[in-house]
Amino acid sequence: MQLSHRRRKEIASLTVKKYRDALGETVIEGTRSVEAAIAAGAPIREILLTEDARSDGRVATMLTRTSAPVYVISDRELKTVSDVETSQGVLAVAAIERVPLSQIENLSRILALDGVQDPGNAGTIIRAAAWFGVEAVLTGAGTVDLYNPKVVRAAMGGLWDLRHADGDDLAAAFGGLKASGFTIYGADLEGTPAGLWRPDRRSVLVLGSEAHGLSAEVGAMLDGRVAVPRSGAGRGVESLNVGVAAGIVLYEWTKNTRPA
Amino acid sequence: MQLSHRRRKEIASLTVKKYRDALGETVIEGTRSVEAAIAAGAPIREILLTEDARSDGRVATMLTRTSAPVYVISDRELKTVSDVETSQGVLAVAAIERVPLSQIENLSRILALDGVQDPGNAGTIIRAAAWFGVEAVLTGAGTVDLYNPKVVRAAMGGLWDLRHADGDDLAAAFGGLKASGFTIYGADLEGTPAGLWRPDRRSVLVLGSEAHGLSAEVGAMLDGRVAVPRSGAGRGVESLNVGVAAGIVLYEWTKNTRPA
Repeated sequence: MQLSHRRRKEIASLTVKKYRDALGETVIEGTRSVEAAIAAGAPIREILLTEDARSDGRVATMLTRTSAPVYVISDRELKTVSDVETSQGVLAVAAIERVPLSQIENLSRILALDGVQDPGNAGTIIRAAAWFGVEAVLTGAGTVDLYNPKVVRAAMGGLWDLRHADGDDLAAAFGGLKASGFTIYGADLEGTPAGLWRPDRRSVLVLGSEAHGLSAEVGAMLDGRVAVPRSGAGRGVESLNVGVAAGIVLYEWTKNTRPA
Repeated sequence: MQLSHRRRKEIASLTVKKYRDALGETVIEGTRSVEAAIAAGAPIREILLTEDARSDGRVATMLTRTSAPVYVISDRELKTVSDVETSQGVLAVAAIERVPLSQIENLSRILALDGVQDPGNAGTIIRAAAWFGVEAVLTGAGTVDLYNPKVVRAAMGGLWDLRHADGDDLAAAFGGLKASGFTIYGADLEGTPAGLWRPDRRSVLVLGSEAHGLSAEVGAMLDGRVAVPRSGAGRGVESLNVGVAAGIVLYEWTKNTRPA
């Protein structure tokens, strides 16, 4: 099928948040990420391929698993819609599906992001959250847009395994979640060592910003704090990478949750 | 002091492995990374600063903690030696200090990298290894050069907390380490869940390449395998980020080591 000039321009605009919000769509790039989105049942609107990509065996197999319309585009057209330096010629458009807070209040395990700004960190965290069975992610003000194509790529399909609610005012959202029976934990340098943490069965884990940690408003709402303490004696390294620290806390969250 | 034209050209060449090896030096960029290297006692040969950076309070404090010679360079000179897009105007040259295998054989906890190719992943892993008290890192053929400035930056000072041996032929190196009493574990999708892993007190942990995992030669030398199993039910995400998976195994390594 031929992609219309108008639609191609719309897709090209999806690198900008304003247009993603207006159109309610984002872009997924790369064979592996598009495969993962299809496997997770993401709401895919269309798939764009170059001629070269269409003749790839792995891509052909992938297309048997979706009923989304497929458009073949030229290398020149690809450049206008792609956000990556070296494109594989495989790109999908997916609908953005945020849910209201009321739709995550009946869950057990919610991740909240309080000012996580780096798209690679946010995507890596979402990927780990999906791996460890987190059910939903709640984003507060100052957190990178989860539909930023860089987040989508780093999340490697994980975004489509989680529900996503937009809790602009996290402290207010936590008030509602506490009323619904959730315990709120924050990852913090000063906290219970992750290995000794015994989170309640229904809990929210909040991760703060790379530079400033948890915001004061969120800190005031916490029921507990959890940390990944240093065990090395070296004086060089001052902290863990944010994605690694988050991954360890997410891992212990699954392992250590109190039985119902 | 004035930096000579010749020395500036040498420093500029350190982005290329051939020149790093010939000169036995690498470059550390950014205030935080240089601070960390000083704190860890890295063998710093000189520090290069722009006028702006020199008048920064944090940089001034940092300089009180080192006796390395300091050179003020112009913004134009900085561009010729810097490897980053937005430089902070703070840069140090450090000597590369690899040790022979015989100097790590008396240790207890050695990390081996078998074909880890992405500089960001390698640096993140080194940072976590230092945080969790690993004593040395052994690199095999096909692993990114740990003195690549991108690795140095991502390691955030961690590189200077570890000894580094170059085990080009990892399988042969493992033979020697086994004879010295080490148990060799590999991180692998098929392995003991990390939480149930009880590593011997003197052990080597091997991490494989992002794309291909552990090499066959290394696989044949392993005494055990350790994994970070998925607990989520989602079908989107297929794996963890390499740095996150490594971080979790390094974390459990410290926590679960059998007492002597």
